[in-house]
Amino acid sequence: MTMIWQVYLSGEIHTDWRCQIADAVSEADLPIELMSPNTNHADSDDCGAEILGEPGSDFWRDHMGAKMNAIRNRTLLDAADIVVVRFGEKYRQWNAAFDAGYAAAMGKSLIVQHPAEFTHALKEIDGAAMATCETTDQVIEILRYVTMGDLSRG
Amino acid sequence: MTMIWQVYLSGEIHTDWRCQIADAVSEADLPIELMSPNTNHADSDDCGAEILGEPGSDFWRDHMGAKMNAIRNRTLLDAADIVVVRFGEKYRQWNAAFDAGYAAAMGKSLIVQHPAEFTHALKEIDGAAMATCETTDQVIEILRYVTMGDLSRG
Amino acid sequence: MTMIWQVYLSGEIHTDWRCQIADAVSEADLPIELMSPNTNHADSDDCGAEILGEPGSDFWRDHMGAKMNAIRNRTLLDAADIVVVRFGEKYRQWNAAFDAGYAAAMGKSLIVQHPAEFTHALKEIDGAAMATCETTDQVIEILRYVTMGDLSRG
Amino acid sequence: MTMIWQVYLSGEIHTDWRCQIADAVSEADLPIELMSPNTNHADSDDCGAEILGEPGSDFWRDHMGAKMNAIRNRTLLDAADIVVVRFGEKYRQWNAAFDAGYAAAMGKSLIVQHPAEFTHALKEIDGAAMATCETTDQVIEILRYVTMGDLSRG
Amino acid sequence: MTMIWQVYLSGEIHTDWRCQIADAVSEADLPIELMSPNTNHADSDDCGAEILGEPGSDFWRDHMGAKMNAIRNRTLLDAADIVVVRFGEKYRQWNAAFDAGYAAAMGKSLIVQHPAEFTHALKEIDGAAMATCETTDQVIEILRYVTMGDLSRG
Amino acid sequence: MTMIWQVYLSGEIHTDWRCQIADAVSEADLPIELMSPNTNHADSDDCGAEILGEPGSDFWRDHMGAKMNAIRNRTLLDAADIVVVRFGEKYRQWNAAFDAGYAAAMGKSLIVQHPAEFTHALKEIDGAAMATCETTDQVIEILRYVTMGDLSRG
Amino acid sequence: MTMIWQVYLSGEIHTDWRCQIADAVSEADLPIELMSPNTNHADSDDCGAEILGEPGSDFWRDHMGAKMNAIRNRTLLDAADIVVVRFGEKYRQWNAAFDAGYAAAMGKSLIVQHPAEFTHALKEIDGAAMATCETTDQVIEILRYVTMGDLSRG
Amino acid sequence: MTMIWQVYLSGEIHTDWRCQIADAVSEADLPIELMSPNTNHADSDDCGAEILGEPGSDFWRDHMGAKMNAIRNRTLLDAADIVVVRFGEKYRQWNAAFDAGYAAAMGKSLIVQHPAEFTHALKEIDGAAMATCETTDQVIEILRYVTMGDLSRG
Repeated sequence: MTMIWQVYLSGEIHTDWRCQIADAVSEADLPIELMSPNTNHADSDDCGAEILGEPGSDFWRDHMGAKMNAIRNRTLLDAADIVVVRFGEKYRQWNAAFDAGYAAAMGKSLIVQHPAEFTHALKEIDGAAMATCETTDQVIEILRYVTMGDLSRG
Repeated sequence: MTMIWQVYLSGEIHTDWRCQIADAVSEADLPIELMSPNTNHADSDDCGAEILGEPGSDFWRDHMGAKMNAIRNRTLLDAADIVVVRFGEKYRQWNAAFDAGYAAAMGKSLIVQHPAEFTHALKEIDGAAMATCETTDQVIEILRYVTMGDLSRG
Repeated sequence: MTMIWQVYLSGEIHTDWRCQIADAVSEADLPIELMSPNTNHADSDDCGAEILGEPGSDFWRDHMGAKMNAIRNRTLLDAADIVVVRFGEKYRQWNAAFDAGYAAAMGKSLIVQHPAEFTHALKEIDGAAMATCETTDQVIEILRYVTMGDLSRG
Repeated sequence: MTMIWQVYLSGEIHTDWRCQIADAVSEADLPIELMSPNTNHADSDDCGAEILGEPGSDFWRDHMGAKMNAIRNRTLLDAADIVVVRFGEKYRQWNAAFDAGYAAAMGKSLIVQHPAEFTHALKEIDGAAMATCETTDQVIEILRYVTMGDLSRG
Repeated sequence: MTMIWQVYLSGEIHTDWRCQIADAVSEADLPIELMSPNTNHADSDDCGAEILGEPGSDFWRDHMGAKMNAIRNRTLLDAADIVVVRFGEKYRQWNAAFDAGYAAAMGKSLIVQHPAEFTHALKEIDGAAMATCETTDQVIEILRYVTMGDLSRG
Repeated sequence: MTMIWQVYLSGEIHTDWRCQIADAVSEADLPIELMSPNTNHADSDDCGAEILGEPGSDFWRDHMGAKMNAIRNRTLLDAADIVVVRFGEKYRQWNAAFDAGYAAAMGKSLIVQHPAEFTHALKEIDGAAMATCETTDQVIEILRYVTMGDLSRG
Repeated sequence: MTMIWQVYLSGEIHTDWRCQIADAVSEADLPIELMSPNTNHADSDDCGAEILGEPGSDFWRDHMGAKMNAIRNRTLLDAADIVVVRFGEKYRQWNAAFDAGYAAAMGKSLIVQHPAEFTHALKEIDGAAMATCETTDQVIEILRYVTMGDLSRG
Repeated sequence: MTMIWQVYLSGEIHTDWRCQIADAVSEADLPIELMSPNTNHADSDDCGAEILGEPGSDFWRDHMGAKMNAIRNRTLLDAADIVVVRFGEKYRQWNAAFDAGYAAAMGKSLIVQHPAEFTHALKEIDGAAMATCETTDQVIEILRYVTMGDLSRG
């Protein structure tokens, strides 16, 4: 089978989890194309105002930026076969939950990663997921198993 | 025009905002049918375990409950013309953000209500909304204007 | 057959063409439910700023209003079986052309009415229409024939 | 990520804005495939009658041409991830507005470029857009940022 | 069960088969709403030219009429649960075959009635049908059995 | 809320479980319309041959019957909000599993009822379900809770 | 633009019109991939019975063949951007009309070729087409113009 | 034609039928990409618990595994043009029937292979299939004929 799986990595942007997945995919030569939002926090906040001009209001500044980023994010979510959403320890991360809802409505296979203490607060999102896990290694194992059928037994 | 608008009220369940909207709809005889998730917090948490039996694990207990509630919520979201999502002052409210993402992906008209201090954290969701406001009265005014064309000038 | 046809009347708002159609539908008791955008020009311009507050910029003022009106217009366009788009003599009427494109993409039956001198400028829109005509009486005759099978021979 | 973004350039055909974008895409080696309608005005007007024969009526001549061009335009709009619609200073440009409506209904990311004086007349279309700008350089910056994450700070 | 089945009766217009079905539906009080194209042959041919004006060409005269009838036929086909297509003994009846293809692509349940001698020529259409029969009585029996579960044993 | 929930009861036809659900829905006046396949086994087997004539082969006899029943079953499955699939103790019940797959692909909320000993054999179907239970009383409790929010605590 | 257009050639199989188009596409190096049904008449009639076994009935023999061919034809129609349907001088050609209806319902761009004397009988199909012509050369010119923008003026 | 057909091989995993098809596809150089579920029975059962941790319950252990496998199977089913479902002599094989229902609802071309004695029990699934056969050689012949037009006459 020569199919390339499209995997979108949504959510937390303050650790290097995307790099860990990219390294694992590359090392194992998995048939996966990784996609992600712009993870440069400052650029992601400023893009609208930088390109279109300052609107003179915080609300509209955020609005312009959010919609410009959405051009990228919606297109990639639409193209994805699998959407991985990672909730980190900090921040409200409503955009991660939004992406999970978007992915669920589009019928994408959703994999959710979060610390165990969020289980109750994230139950609706876990309920929509095909797999819920706690570590990046587990995400990598899922991707390997799903695309290649290789199950590493503990 | 005799169309009845289907409006789903998602999000915060600890104040009486849904009643305020219901009263306003009833008083003004707006052509609107309001729909909402089960707002009894305890029942919403326990429904899965009560009906299907205790699974012996917090994760699966939440999972069973979340999916049982999702039978209701997905069906009503799918039937809605307009989805109002209210973010309150407290809690993580990831399910509200999930519903917003779900509604956006389904092409529903999204109205978001939240306190002004959440503007930056909710920018992706506001970016997907047709209107963002701060008070329940504003939600009511939007529903009245959209369905009846009555604009109350301040 | 007891089906009620949903007909959305888009475009020009400065003459009473919608009333003429409504009168004809009512008089002939046609099985048609008419739908339309808010035709109060001032309210349609001001609704966003009135309800959500003045944004301090013409662009965002228009933006808020346009999206609030879109809650109504998209919902009704989505519900329509037939979309009638009327281009008047004046103004740029880009929203009428936008509605025609929206309706065409949604597979709605499109009826276009416009003065003969616009034939070349509107050729793409006429090309997507099931019928192109010049008078409101013709629109009424089309609606009568399509829904009832009554053909008034000249 | 090796995804190639499909970008359709709709609207004004009397300046070289498509070439400027093509040059910028080529120079920066952006992962973008540009698509556009036939921009030869005379051929676009005459194609139907030339190939299918003169119909003996201006209306049907335009009709044949519009539908022949629509074979191209609808297919490319359907294939697009992003649709850029440019409104120039002149002409009624109803086909540009039609394409914007078509793209909006199909859930495409819409970028609109127009002179500032059209803000009020184009508010419905701007309301459906993910970004509104005034210059071709801005369009290029948006495409670069969205596809590559490169933000040129002013 | 209170569901009303929408049944569209396409095809041959020179016998009274639609009346026979309507009588049977009415007599047995079946939960069925029957829909059909305009069966007045002359009106169906002339509607476009009568309402929109003579175009001065046979091709465009037919074109205008066909599209005006399509406003009705497409809407009703889209609304149908079951599409019955009857091929009579005479004429080419390409519009009946077109409706069958349209219904098949839309995932409608297709019932085809035709004389036995057309079996080979209609094999692609029979292949897309849920039932193929030869008499109007059989169509009636199918509708009765499908909607009510009453099977009249011979 | 005045919405009527469409619930399709698929699967086992040799016990009176559908009646039990109907009685409970009626008694509690739940806003539910129940739908089901033809549960007369003999009629369901013979319908094709009785109406269309004996085909002279067991395979085609079954084929004609299966497709005639599918006119009913597909239409009702398509109309359903919730699909309940019950696996009994006996028979292969492949049509029940087929309906579950059909419902899952259509995004319907799936409730599965089966004896505990089938857990491993039905794991793919349980994996696609929103709730899995063992008794008809549980199905009734789920329907009551989902549509009315009434949770009977044990 | 590097897009390859998928063009399905449906209809008449007794002349070499598909070869003429293939030669023209190849000669002009048009970015087109041509697709077609199996044009071997005998194989197309016999495929079902040859592979699956003789069913002992003409009806079911045709049925098996028609469905086997439909595996190919539906898949290719679904993949097509443009569907060309050619009606020859002879035979009933209901499968060509069926394909036209299928393509229309799927929103494909439909090009119809037929002798002028069929104009009235094919008016519903011409009404659904983006272009109607009489010769294979015209089909080739349309394909060239649509994909390359080259208009050969007479 | 250079199209590559995506063929998903669902069902029985205890014989080498997938290898036979792969060999035949390879030998005849058919334009087919074969896809299949993970056919390692033990890994398929254990994948969820191995990667995500033992849940302490048979039901949830199966549930985790079923959903992890579904990430693969749903994605491949969605990508398939043709779905072949093979029912072997043993086991209940409800997942095979589920896949058939899923494929039917998605409009995929379904080919079913099963021993003759299952004809009555599988009639609903055969009724949804484009071809029903008994041997792997027949599946291969169908794939060859459908993709290449080569009919091997007996």
